[in-house]
Formats: sequence, structure tokens, C-alpha cells
Amino acid sequence: MVNDKCGIFAIYGSRRAAELTYFGLYSLQHRGQESAGIVTSGNGKVHIYKGMGEVNEVFADRANISRLKGNIAIGHTRYSTTGASSLTNIQPFLITNRSEKLAIGHNGNLTNSLELRQRLESSGSIFQTTSDTEIFLHLTAASKKRTWLNRICDSLQHVQGAYSLVFMTEYSIIAARDPRGFRPLALGKYNNGTYIVASETCAFDIIGAKYIRDIEPGEVIEISEKGIRSLYPLKKQKHAFCIFEYIYFARPDSKVFGENVDKIRRRLGRQLAREHPTEADIVIGIPDSANTAALGYSEQSGIRFEIGLIRNHYVGRTFIDPHQDIRDLDVKIKFNPVRGVLEGQRVVVVDDSIVRGTTSGKLVKLIRSAGAKEIHLRISAPPIIAPCYYGIDMPTREELIASSKTVEQIRKCLNVESLGYLSIDGMSSMPSLPNNSFCVSCFSGRYPLKVSALNDKLRLEKV
Amino acid sequence: MVNDKCGIFAIYGSRRAAELTYFGLYSLQHRGQESAGIVTSGNGKVHIYKGMGEVNEVFADRANISRLKGNIAIGHTRYSTTGASSLTNIQPFLITNRSEKLAIGHNGNLTNSLELRQRLESSGSIFQTTSDTEIFLHLTAASKKRTWLNRICDSLQHVQGAYSLVFMTEYSIIAARDPRGFRPLALGKYNNGTYIVASETCAFDIIGAKYIRDIEPGEVIEISEKGIRSLYPLKKQKHAFCIFEYIYFARPDSKVFGENVDKIRRRLGRQLAREHPTEADIVIGIPDSANTAALGYSEQSGIRFEIGLIRNHYVGRTFIDPHQDIRDLDVKIKFNPVRGVLEGQRVVVVDDSIVRGTTSGKLVKLIRSAGAKEIHLRISAPPIIAPCYYGIDMPTREELIASSKTVEQIRKCLNVESLGYLSIDGMSSMPSLPNNSFCVSCFSGRYPLKVSALNDKLRLEKV
Amino acid sequence: MVNDKCGIFAIYGSRRAAELTYFGLYSLQHRGQESAGIVTSGNGKVHIYKGMGEVNEVFADRANISRLKGNIAIGHTRYSTTGASSLTNIQPFLITNRSEKLAIGHNGNLTNSLELRQRLESSGSIFQTTSDTEIFLHLTAASKKRTWLNRICDSLQHVQGAYSLVFMTEYSIIAARDPRGFRPLALGKYNNGTYIVASETCAFDIIGAKYIRDIEPGEVIEISEKGIRSLYPLKKQKHAFCIFEYIYFARPDSKVFGENVDKIRRRLGRQLAREHPTEADIVIGIPDSANTAALGYSEQSGIRFEIGLIRNHYVGRTFIDPHQDIRDLDVKIKFNPVRGVLEGQRVVVVDDSIVRGTTSGKLVKLIRSAGAKEIHLRISAPPIIAPCYYGIDMPTREELIASSKTVEQIRKCLNVESLGYLSIDGMSSMPSLPNNSFCVSCFSGRYPLKVSALNDKLRLEKV
Amino acid sequence: MVNDKCGIFAIYGSRRAAELTYFGLYSLQHRGQESAGIVTSGNGKVHIYKGMGEVNEVFADRANISRLKGNIAIGHTRYSTTGASSLTNIQPFLITNRSEKLAIGHNGNLTNSLELRQRLESSGSIFQTTSDTEIFLHLTAASKKRTWLNRICDSLQHVQGAYSLVFMTEYSIIAARDPRGFRPLALGKYNNGTYIVASETCAFDIIGAKYIRDIEPGEVIEISEKGIRSLYPLKKQKHAFCIFEYIYFARPDSKVFGENVDKIRRRLGRQLAREHPTEADIVIGIPDSANTAALGYSEQSGIRFEIGLIRNHYVGRTFIDPHQDIRDLDVKIKFNPVRGVLEGQRVVVVDDSIVRGTTSGKLVKLIRSAGAKEIHLRISAPPIIAPCYYGIDMPTREELIASSKTVEQIRKCLNVESLGYLSIDGMSSMPSLPNNSFCVSCFSGRYPLKVSALNDKLRLEKV
Repeated sequence: MVNDKCGIFAIYGSRRAAELTYFGLYSLQHRGQESAGIVTSGNGKVHIYKGMGEVNEVFADRANISRLKGNIAIGHTRYSTTGASSLTNIQPFLITNRSEKLAIGHNGNLTNSLELRQRLESSGSIFQTTSDTEIFLHLTAASKKRTWLNRICDSLQHVQGAYSLVFMTEYSIIAARDPRGFRPLALGKYNNGTYIVASETCAFDIIGAKYIRDIEPGEVIEISEKGIRSLYPLKKQKHAFCIFEYIYFARPDSKVFGENVDKIRRRLGRQLAREHPTEADIVIGIPDSANTAALGYSEQSGIRFEIGLIRNHYVGRTFIDPHQDIRDLDVKIKFNPVRGVLEGQRVVVVDDSIVRGTTSGKLVKLIRSAGAKEIHLRISAPPIIAPCYYGIDMPTREELIASSKTVEQIRKCLNVESLGYLSIDGMSSMPSLPNNSFCVSCFSGRYPLKVSALNDKLRLEKV
Repeated sequence: MVNDKCGIFAIYGSRRAAELTYFGLYSLQHRGQESAGIVTSGNGKVHIYKGMGEVNEVFADRANISRLKGNIAIGHTRYSTTGASSLTNIQPFLITNRSEKLAIGHNGNLTNSLELRQRLESSGSIFQTTSDTEIFLHLTAASKKRTWLNRICDSLQHVQGAYSLVFMTEYSIIAARDPRGFRPLALGKYNNGTYIVASETCAFDIIGAKYIRDIEPGEVIEISEKGIRSLYPLKKQKHAFCIFEYIYFARPDSKVFGENVDKIRRRLGRQLAREHPTEADIVIGIPDSANTAALGYSEQSGIRFEIGLIRNHYVGRTFIDPHQDIRDLDVKIKFNPVRGVLEGQRVVVVDDSIVRGTTSGKLVKLIRSAGAKEIHLRISAPPIIAPCYYGIDMPTREELIASSKTVEQIRKCLNVESLGYLSIDGMSSMPSLPNNSFCVSCFSGRYPLKVSALNDKLRLEKV
Repeated sequence: MVNDKCGIFAIYGSRRAAELTYFGLYSLQHRGQESAGIVTSGNGKVHIYKGMGEVNEVFADRANISRLKGNIAIGHTRYSTTGASSLTNIQPFLITNRSEKLAIGHNGNLTNSLELRQRLESSGSIFQTTSDTEIFLHLTAASKKRTWLNRICDSLQHVQGAYSLVFMTEYSIIAARDPRGFRPLALGKYNNGTYIVASETCAFDIIGAKYIRDIEPGEVIEISEKGIRSLYPLKKQKHAFCIFEYIYFARPDSKVFGENVDKIRRRLGRQLAREHPTEADIVIGIPDSANTAALGYSEQSGIRFEIGLIRNHYVGRTFIDPHQDIRDLDVKIKFNPVRGVLEGQRVVVVDDSIVRGTTSGKLVKLIRSAGAKEIHLRISAPPIIAPCYYGIDMPTREELIASSKTVEQIRKCLNVESLGYLSIDGMSSMPSLPNNSFCVSCFSGRYPLKVSALNDKLRLEKV
Repeated sequence: MVNDKCGIFAIYGSRRAAELTYFGLYSLQHRGQESAGIVTSGNGKVHIYKGMGEVNEVFADRANISRLKGNIAIGHTRYSTTGASSLTNIQPFLITNRSEKLAIGHNGNLTNSLELRQRLESSGSIFQTTSDTEIFLHLTAASKKRTWLNRICDSLQHVQGAYSLVFMTEYSIIAARDPRGFRPLALGKYNNGTYIVASETCAFDIIGAKYIRDIEPGEVIEISEKGIRSLYPLKKQKHAFCIFEYIYFARPDSKVFGENVDKIRRRLGRQLAREHPTEADIVIGIPDSANTAALGYSEQSGIRFEIGLIRNHYVGRTFIDPHQDIRDLDVKIKFNPVRGVLEGQRVVVVDDSIVRGTTSGKLVKLIRSAGAKEIHLRISAPPIIAPCYYGIDMPTREELIASSKTVEQIRKCLNVESLGYLSIDGMSSMPSLPNNSFCVSCFSGRYPLKVSALNDKLRLEKV
């Protein structure tokens, strides 16, 4: 599976800042389930609470929210590697510099982090985490500018890569997005004087806030008692919106890069039906993410949409014995195939991606064991052939099944009657956005922003 | 919400009895989330492990499965009231009588439990739980018959009500179902000599077992080294299968009362469309349970099916501040409305029941706030007007909105453009089953089996 | 180590019954650390909370005390075998019979439990625990008498063995002690109309209650709104107070069998010095239990008392690697030898018992490694040669070092310069109690009450 | 109560480095119970595990030790303020600088931390903790020297205050002690090539290592594959050993500042008897820390030593209801007074300090309630009149009872027949150490090292 790195949330101007951040993070839970944290500021005091686990688990004790007093807050939910030592990597990070506190939450990935880190370390910076987010803090502290806003703008001159950022100073929220706009970031309004910044607009909906606009690529805004101030401190760049947000990551009820995710996802399904039609009795989607594309496929093809797999709600931390001989237990634990729907049918199965091919193979078997006569697998995205350097966790190139196999080879591997992937052009032409607004590097292998020589060789974690 | 009381599972003849029971219970998790337990027997030793929480939580430590040695097992997952004292109510119950162990797991509810309890107590029985399941054990122990099988058959002469039962003796599995067959119980085969009994067939699918047949109403079977033995010790009764299993409880991928749940549920949707057609742009279901009926409605009506609400996977134990002013937070936490789907549309919303009306009201508001122009609510069951005495947890008659309001009054209450309930006849006529095979008492107020005078006055818990 | 089985506590007539029981159990913690529970009654409602662990752990959440409403309570703290299944064995047990609740807490051990159990099971009783305490409940329920008090008196006619009991009915406390008085049980007064029964008087001290008198051997008392009523329903027997309560179990600040434990324990030390004098520089005790005897030895011998071993407060659940090569880590984790005290000295080491000899051997090495020149081990009790059937957990006869070795052989084993045990006569002659008031069976092998043939062959747990 | 800040431990050259560190920390548990952590290095990899709680609790899961591979380790156990945010303050700290890892564990307190922090922050350092320990890391990173050893020596030129330090580089252990030697630090040998550094020698005893010598005041040593290298990079200063280590903190079985703690503590008791003799029947100590001084008092005075209070082993996290009316419950929960010892006696009670006077007052009441006829309180240290700036947690000057009351006023307050404190001279003259080797500032109010103007005004935590 591919995983996004993080969800971020910021709020300025509510006495219930921590609580609203909690619900905001809850709605961004799909962007990261391994840790969560909230920092607040009010009356010159800063409070922080972080922990490993889902938002629900970290804040299981209500009192830990109540203690986060203040009317400014930022929150973060994160996907990451496990392990106790990674405790120190839980965001938001909170530091003190010149007797002032600064907190940061980051979604993205830097492409020149190692160079920056080496440079900073040789001038005396000490690194306490293995996260490239810490680099922003050192750069900000090193700036000679007087205000946090200016220092942050300063620091952004040095970094390359994908970043959507929220900062909390003791008196304001500062949000920033890299000039290519890889990852989303939206601005909302809760009520007069209360503003919100979040990775996706579903975080506005849950608390009843209104979407205003996206933070623009390259924009830095500060929200304080003076209202919102907007700066564009960076050189303009060609946009490179991560198209995977549409395909898989973002919640269908979110607006991302200015569009309803659901609407785009359905369009992908329709386009998929145009590119790869087939004879079949029913269309099903792999729930929940591919259901919308499956509806699009159904609509375009006229083949009846059905719910042939039901996602189990009680997955949790079910153990799976590696030595057990229950076949394909892991997918059985996640999905219940509905025999009454599938039996004897020619089934179009719509999914949003094939990564290693292992899970897809097991799903095919599961569907076939429920009686499907034919399986026509349709993927609402092109083959993934290259890793992502901008904030998505993917396996290495070698592990990507499409990096070394043709579509026909994959089809045989998965043992399906037919297999169709969406084309890159079919995927990325959107009526509402200029052509080439998207980063499609994981499908094309062509990167809009080169990774530094050093970063290319090594991963930060391994230093 | 209405809640089923329990899921039961039994297995005879596998060295991995405990592990298979674990996965079986996992697939029956929707029948009870508040406690779980497994008892095993092998080499003359009996092992038990039980706890509060979902199956995943109770057996979070894998070692607790490994310690459950033996090739016979029964398991239970339960819905119940909370509270530490209810620890003693966690099933399976395990007792010793005449130096032999007997364990029991029960799904159902007795209608003469108080009479039986009084009689047993006055002859010296002591009750250690507040569950009516304990009554079976006392009756069994009081029988003068020589074998557990005969004693169990004996005991069933005394009880009235709904029961699907699995017993584990040290050497066999015994399963029984009341003569009206209120609750389901199915027999499956894992491989030669390995048999399974479970509330629903989805428990067979997860471990790769085959469905053989239902345990018949009034049937008692024993599975031992001699194979399967079947008895019918009780007077025949008219069948009274709980139709709510089809409407809401059972997993759509299960076969229950001999039919695929999904197929019946879809038929209900089609019938609903016939009885209550309307002009609309799209049909949506309240996920996940009403999606199938919504598909049936769509099919019959020709109105396009859509996914307009997405169920959140991370609900867990999210706290909801009673003092908060986030409107309808509880439904927002459970469901994400997809604005791109709903905005400006005339929407048929299919749900499977209205109990108190509170949640339905909030869902309507949620859908409307996402832009729906018209909402036509369709319920794939008749109005619930009376409580259940056969194992379903429902609010009191007073709390049931349909017990005191007409359909038009409810429509106004919920503020929808139109409201249609399925008729009792439309619901209960099935091609595959003789008419009147079902218990529809919660819709009709007419009970197939009277509750004893004493039970009617008091509930067991309150004694 | 030998272990007592339980501590019991009961209170009648305080609105803070549960809280006072909590503190009472806390002070009885040394009598059992593996589980704890409290039952309360008030306004016709009965509440219970039980769990595995120390009193502190079980009631870590204060709210679990607050929920135990009522002005009558009994509590129990228990030493037992581990294992999840033993959840059902946690006392107090609470049952319903003839629509009335009865709870029981027991300290002791029956000697005819298997006979009773067989008889009860054959007449239809079902056993839900493996504890012999459950037998009292079945016998009580089987009695035809009208009141709980009379039924309990009835039930005691059948049981043989050691028992100090507290019962809670919905309206009263009933306490009972076996006619030989094996285990202690004391009556105290908190204030007007508020009475307490507890295993040891330290439970009175902690809450500020006053000791009135012991519950007499063979006495049954009921405390209710009518005050205290006393009955002697059983045939008189020769007393057989467990002398191990004085030697090791009871807290030195308790009054047990009418005497201050500390005073007796000191007397044992003085007598030990008389029986086994030696030349030495200092006397030390194995803390904490043997310090008092060591003070007595010092007093009598004139050899200076010193603190040469300090017991560690942070023992907790420190893991001890079985494969580690840190010598005698287990005693090092429990005790810190004080080199400044021991170096170059001839040391009299007073301990209260040698069971298997393993720990004693390690302690000797530890003391010697801290520089002791000579070690003269003195035991303030006679050699333990036989198991206990009256409520003390001891290893089997084969494991008791003194059952097969002479004192000289043990001395060599432990590698000490000299070894002296107190004589049985020296131990059991007390100024305040008639000769032969004590059970000394573990030292003499002669039992005041025979174990039934069946019980002798089998242990209850193994049925 | 006064509290020491920390215990530190380091080991070089054992394959079982983490495990030995665990046991070492366990033996230093009395120096800090609120968090613990271990860092290890081996094969170019660094591992860390830290958590809130006692060593036992943090490493309750054995696997967390096993994962700490490597043959070099440092560990830390800490007393500190509570609160989730203090997670980031758990030591050891681990950082990366110039691609190399450095870990630090610190016992002590800096007196110019705020100046240093301001200076570092203004040159771009960011602070991620509120601990002054982080300052060492920034200073070390800022040094231009080539090796960690030289950079550490460099950094020590800037800091003022009390520090005993252990550092772990990827290839060595570096230990340092401030030139006044406020806090102890000892060097031990486990076996050939395996060296240990620890706060107290009891950490050597538990694992069977030998004490070699103290790390000298002002000394820095590096232990690596080349053996031990010693440097004295700092200007010599007059020694200022914390005398409270002898009076209260250190374990009696430790050697601290070159002397057995027990021996000194006993000497304090004898001197106390000389300075404040009295007529009495028995001498008791407040366990465990004052028992040794009480033995000294007994020896000198000829008054019999007794054990009149027994410390409870099950204190744990017992809740104490603030609204309860059980008098002096907190001391009753900690101590059991032995009536048999105290009743009717004139008792000399030896304690090691009176801080606020509250606990002492309750202890006096407890002892009197157990029947003591007269109480003569003797304190084996002078009155505490001033706070400590060198690593001991004390209440503010205003809260110290002796800062505003005369001895006679305190005597009345505590309601004792007589009260005697040891004199400063009587306390600090030791045969083995030159006069004036000790810091006695909390007794004299005269500080051997001034606190910086800034630090004096503010506490680090409050910035």
C-alpha cells in the first residue's frame, strides 16, 4: 500500500482551539495513523500533548485536551515507521529560541535535506530527531530576521521539496506551501476572526467551518490579531500537484487543489471505462477508496454497479499468524466478499492502484472463491513504476510490480481475464486545471524537482 | 440502535481449535462487541480465556490464544450492558458438575427465565451471574440423565424462548436451537472430522470451511469422535425466524435461515421501490447495512445509485463533549457526506430502520447540509412499534418513535420531503420460505410466544 | 516462601463502607497480593468490583470505589495461582438465591472439600470456580432454614477444616470462625453502630477503629441494625491457632489470637538466643519479617543489633533473566547488603524460616560477599517438615529441605559456621495461652484435623 | 521531602551492556523514579528506549531491553515534574551532529543556564527541552574541536554549577564531574576491558563489578578500545561535596565521596547523641533512611534500639481522598507503628531532616497514638534554612520550617518533649576528608558557587 505522510491542522482565535483541533485531526486520520499531537498557546503559555497511535487513542483521556488551554493551536497526525525511539519524531515539534516558542507541523518531504543537515550540523546545530521537519526549525533559528514570519520566509529560501507547513508562534499561526504545491493546504473560516488551515477541507466540515480558498503554492500566510497577511517570498515554479491525492489519499468528501475529490475520482472511473471497456455483468469497487471510480465506470459503461466486497469495521490489530494455513487471511480479515452478488457473474473490479501486486492477487482469489466467473481488473490510475520523493511512502522501485513487468505479465500474475490501467493523459487532463499541473512522477518516472545527489544516495533515517 | 445479543461459534476436531474460533468470532464481531471468550478442551484439560472488549482487544496478546490448547472449542462474543460487575457475565460460562466440565455459549433470550430461576433457587441452586444463560446450566445439572447430551435435552423441556446454543463437554460439542428457530445457527465442515457450528456462515468463510446446513429449529446435535448425531427432543412449533437478521443484523455475505442475506436485503429494497416510488436524481444508502437495499431500490426504480455518505473507519472511542456546540457531531464522526454527490440533488435515502428517530433526524440534517435539494427517506422495514423478547436489545416501547406517531408525524419530525416504510407483507413474503415463517413481532406487536407473567413484569437484571 | 491465602474485611454501618474497606484491604495486603475485590450493599442494591493485582492496582481508578455505594461491605485480598482463568476465582463471590444476594470472603482451607463437592454435584449443584469457598455457598443455598444466618450455621455443620469467613447479606454482615480457630479473625468498632471484622487488627488501626475482641473459634456473629448477635452452632474443639501467623505472616503491629505479634516475635528471638547462643559481633535480621526476632536475640544475647541488609522498595516486577550470569540476582534485587556493617564481622543472621533452602543459601552468599567473617544462622521457628492443609501455601514435602536433611546437613548445604532452629516447645509455650493451643503440624507432622481420604489423594485444582 | 535529581550509569565493553545498565539503573532507582532511559551503541548503530515511570515499569516488556543492542550504553533515571510534555525531557538525550550520534545523561544543576541559553539561542540554537542538560549538547556541537572528547572539554569551560555527566559517543563513554564535585560519580570495573561509571557504587554491587575509584572533581575520562584516558581540562576549585548524599540520598550500602554511606550515617547518629543526649527507654529511626543514624544514637547513648515503625511495602499509587476524615492517612499508609514496642515508652525518634514540618508532625502523632509516653525527636542534620541550587529539589525558602522558626518554635509545632538538631560542625567534620570539603549551603545559607543573576531571578522551567 502507499501511504501519505501526514495531516496538518491549525486554528487561530477560538477558546476551544484544542478541541476543534482534535476533531480536525480526527477527520484527517486517514492521512496518518501512527501518532498525533496538539500544541496550543494562550496567555503567554504554551501547552503540548503528543503520543503514539490514532487521534482517538492519543487523546483517549479527555483531560489531556482540557489541559491544552489557549486560543491558538496546531495539530498533526502522522504516518511513520514504528518503534519506541520514534517517540521523539512525533509532531508537532516545539522549540524555544530567543526565549520564544515555535511549533511546527509538516506534510511533505525535502529533497535536499541531507545537504542542509550537513551544513547546519557543521555550524553547530544539533539534531534531536531523524525527521527532515527539524531542518525548518534550525534554519528559522539561524535567520537574523527579527520576526518569526520573516525568519520562516528566510528559511524557505534554502529548502527544496514538498512541504505544506503550519507553524504556531505564541501569538499567531503561520502557514506555508512549497512553490510547486505538491501537497494540499486549505484555508477556512470558523467564524469572525477564527481561521483554520488544514490539509483537506473535510477538517472544516466536521466542525462546521467554511472553505475560503487554498493556500497558494509558494504562499506564506500569517493569521494573528491583525487578521490574515499573505506573502509570496519564493520564486514562482511550475505547479506539481500530487495526483495521488485525487486517486487514493484524500477523502472523497474533501475539496483538494480546488476540486471535489469525489468528482475527480468519478471522472477517472468514467475515463477508465472509455479506455478499457469490457463485457461484464456487474462493476464492483475495492472499498472504500475505489467505490467512487467504480461508480464512474458503471455510469459510463452502463454495467450495473454492485457492492461485492464489504470492508470490515473491526480490523483493528487482529493478529495474523505467519505460520497459519488459512489462505489469504489478511484480505479476508479486511474484506467480506458477498457471494450473492458475485456468484456466476462476470465482474469488473475497479481498484485505484497496484503496488507490489500481492494484495491485488489475494483480492482476485477472494472474489473468485465467492463465485465470480470472470474478473476484469481495472485500475483508475496508470502503472506505478517509480518511487515518490515528495512525501508518499512507497516501496522501492524493485518492489513495484509495474517497474519490471508488462501489463500482460501482471495480468497473468494476478490471474484475471483482463487488466486495464488508466493512461497518464487520461488521468491528468482535467477540465478545471491547466494541463501539466500535476506531478505524475510515480507513473512517468520524470521528476519535476530533482532530488539532491546526497539525498538520492542515502535516506535520512539511515544516516 | 437495536442490537443483537450475541455471536456463537463451536469447533470439533482441529488442533488449531482456539485459533479458528478466534477468527470465527472475529467474523461474528458485528453480533456483539462488548466481551469475548473462548473455552477449549483437549487431553482431559479445559482452558478458558475471556475479557471485556472486542475480540481483537480481548486476545490482543497472541499468547492467550496459544495457551488455549485442545481440539475442541466454543467461543462467544456478546453485546451487553457495561460495568465491572458484568465481568462475571462474560460467556462462555464454564462449570463443573459431577467432576466433569461443561461450557455454554448462548444467543437468544428466555421468556420464562424468572419462573425457572425462582424454582431453581428454591431447590438450592445459587446464581452467580445475572444472565439467563446460567439457567441452562442449573437445569442440566439437575437432570438425572447419565450423559450431558441427555441432560441437555432434558433441560430444554423446561425453557421457553429464543435460544441458539453451543455447549462444550470435555469430549464433544453439543449445539441446540429452539423449536421456533428465532436465532440462526449453521453447521459447517472444515475438513474430514472437523465440524463447525456458528451463528452465521461468514464464520465459515473466513477460515475456509464449507456450509452444510442449518441446525434445524428444535434440533440438538452432538459432534464427537463418533461423528454427528442429531436429535429432536422437543415438540414441534411453528417457525418464527427473526426477520431483523435479514433487515439489519446479519452480515450481507452470510447465509441465514437458508438464504443469502444480501439477496434478501436487495429484494427488500426492490419491494420498497415498488411500494414507495418517487421522483429523484439519486439513491443512497446509510452505510454499510442499508447499501444493499439501496442498490435494490435503485435497480427497481431506475434511479442511479450513489455513495453519498462514507462511513468513517476511525470511529473508535472518540469522545463527544456533551457541552459542545458542534452540531450533530456524533453523526459527523461516523459519516462523511459527499457534497460532490449530494449537492443540488433530489435524493432517495434508504435506511433499514428508524428506532427513536434521533439519529435519523441528524442524518437528514447532515445530508441536507451537504446540499441535497430534496430528501425522500425510505425504510426497508415496517415501523417498529413494539419491543423484542427474543434476544434483541431495543429501547422501551415509549422510546420507539413509531409506537406513538403516524408516518406523517414522523416525516414532519425528521423534516423530509417524503417518508415510506416497507409493509409487513411486502417484507415477509419470500419465495423460498413458507408464509409466516418469520417473527415480525416488533412490527406487528403480536408475539409468537408469550412472555411469562413474571418476566413481563420484571427484567432479570433488575431482580 | 510460604504464603498465607487471604485477608478478609467486613464493615457494617458506614456511608463510606467501600472506602474504609479499601484501606482495610490495603493494610491486609501482605496476606495476598494477587487479586482483590469489594462488595457493597445499600438501599436494596448490591455492587461489586474485583480484579487481578494488588489492592492499589485493582482500585487504581478511584471511581471504582465511588460506584460501590452502600453502608455494608466486605472485601477480600487473595494469594493464589496465576492465570486468566482464575479470574472467576477472585473473591468475594456474589450469588443470588431465592432472589436474595449473598457475598462471601474466605480465609482458610477445607479438608473435606472433595467429598462435599462430589455430594453437592450429584444433587445438581454446578461449580463455577475451582475454589473450595464456593462450597459454603452451595451448602447455604441447600439449607431449608429461613434466614441467611441460620442457613449459614446449617452449612457449617458439614464443612471440616480451617475457615475464617465474612458474609454480606443485603442487610447484614455475618462472620464465622472454625471451631479450632486456625486462622485469626477480629471484631472492631469504628464508631456507634459501625462495626468491623478483619483478619488482623492492623486493618482497624489504619482507619482509626478500635479492637474489641476476637471472633471466637466456633463463633458465628451477625451484625445488623439490631446490633451484634452471637451464636455457637458447632461442637467445641481443641484450639489449633496457626503459629505461623506469629512467626511470619501477620503484621508485627497487629494483635492476633489476642497477642501483639511483635511481642511474641521478639519472645521467639529471645528464646532462640537462649537455645542457640554463639560468639559473635553483631546480630542482623532478614528484613522485614525477621527484624523483630533479631532484636529479641540481640537483647537476650547482648550482641549488638545491626541493620546489615536493607530491603529494596522498588522490587515490583523486575525481570530476572534465567540465562543471565549475574550471580544470585534475585536476592540482590530484593536486598542490599551493607558492607560497612558486615565487613570483617562475625554475624548472627536471624531468619524466620527455611523452606527449600534456596533463598537462604543465596542470602548467605550475599552476606559473605559483603565481607562477613562468620555467619551463624538462627531460625526463629523449628524445621518445617510437613505441608499445611489449613490455608498456607507450601511446597510439597519433598521440596522442604528439612523433611529429608538433618540440621547439620542443612548447615553444610547453606555453608554457614553454625545453624540453630528454635525448638517446638520453645516456640509454642506462651505465657498468655494454654499449652497446646497452637497448630504446629508443619513442624511436627501431626495434624489436629485429619484431611479426608479423598482430599488427601487429590487437590481440588487438579480435578 | 527533598529529592535528588538523577542517577546515571554508563558501561563500556560488554555484549550485555543494556541489561547491565537496566540492573544498574534499578539499583539507582532511589535517585529518581519518574522516568528512565537507556541508549546503546554497537556496530555503528545506536538504539534508545525511554519512558515515564520507574525502571521496572519503563522496561516491563523485556523485549525493549533485547532490542538495545551494542556493547556501550548509558542510562539515566530521573526525578522531575510530571506532565505529558515532560516526555521530551526524559534522559538520556540523543542527538546527531556532523552525522555522528552523541547521548548524554546528567545529574546536577547549572547555575548559569539562562545566560548560556540566551547566548546559544541568539546564535541560532533551538531548544527542544526545558532541561539545562540540553545546554551541554549545544555547547559541544558549537565547539570547533575535532573529537567529541575535546569538544566536551571545550563545552565545560562555559558551564557553571553541579554536574556529574555520562556521554556515549558511537565508540566510547565519556564521563565528567564538575570541579567542585557536588554530586558523586564513581568508576568501576566489570571485567577485563569492561568499565562502568555510576552515581553510586551500589550499581556496581548488583552486577558484581568492582569499585576502582571516584571520578575526580574536574576530571573528564574517556573509555574506549584504547582503555581509559583521563583529563583535567578545568581550573581547580575548592571541593563542595553535597553532604545531603550522606544524610539522606545515597543508599547506605553505597560508597560515596570515598566513604561508606552507612558508616558516615552511623557517625552522624553517634554525634547526635553526644550533642543531644536525653533520658529515654528506646531509640527508633524513621525507616528506612534514618535507621542507621538511630543505631548510631543507640550505640553512643546506650539506649536500646527498637523497630517502632515499619515501612509498608505496598504504598504504590494508593489514592488518598482529600475529603476523607481518616486522620493522617498519608503517613498511616506509609508506616505501621508497632504498639507493642512503643506503648508506655519514652522514645527517641531519629529522623534525617525536617523540611516543611508537615510529615514530621503527622509521624509524631502516629507514634503517640501507638502509646509513646514521651517523644524526643533527634535530627541527624542541622536545620534546613535555604534552598539548593546544585541539583536537589527542595521547597522554596518560605516553605522551609526552619527558615522562619527557632528550634523551640519547631518543637512546639511538632508537639514533642524535646527536639535536637545536629550542628553543622558536628555534621561536617569527618576523619577521612579535609575540613570544609562539603557543600552545606542548605544549612548555612552560604553558597560555594554563586547563582547567576539571571538564574537567581527565574527558573528555567518558567521561561
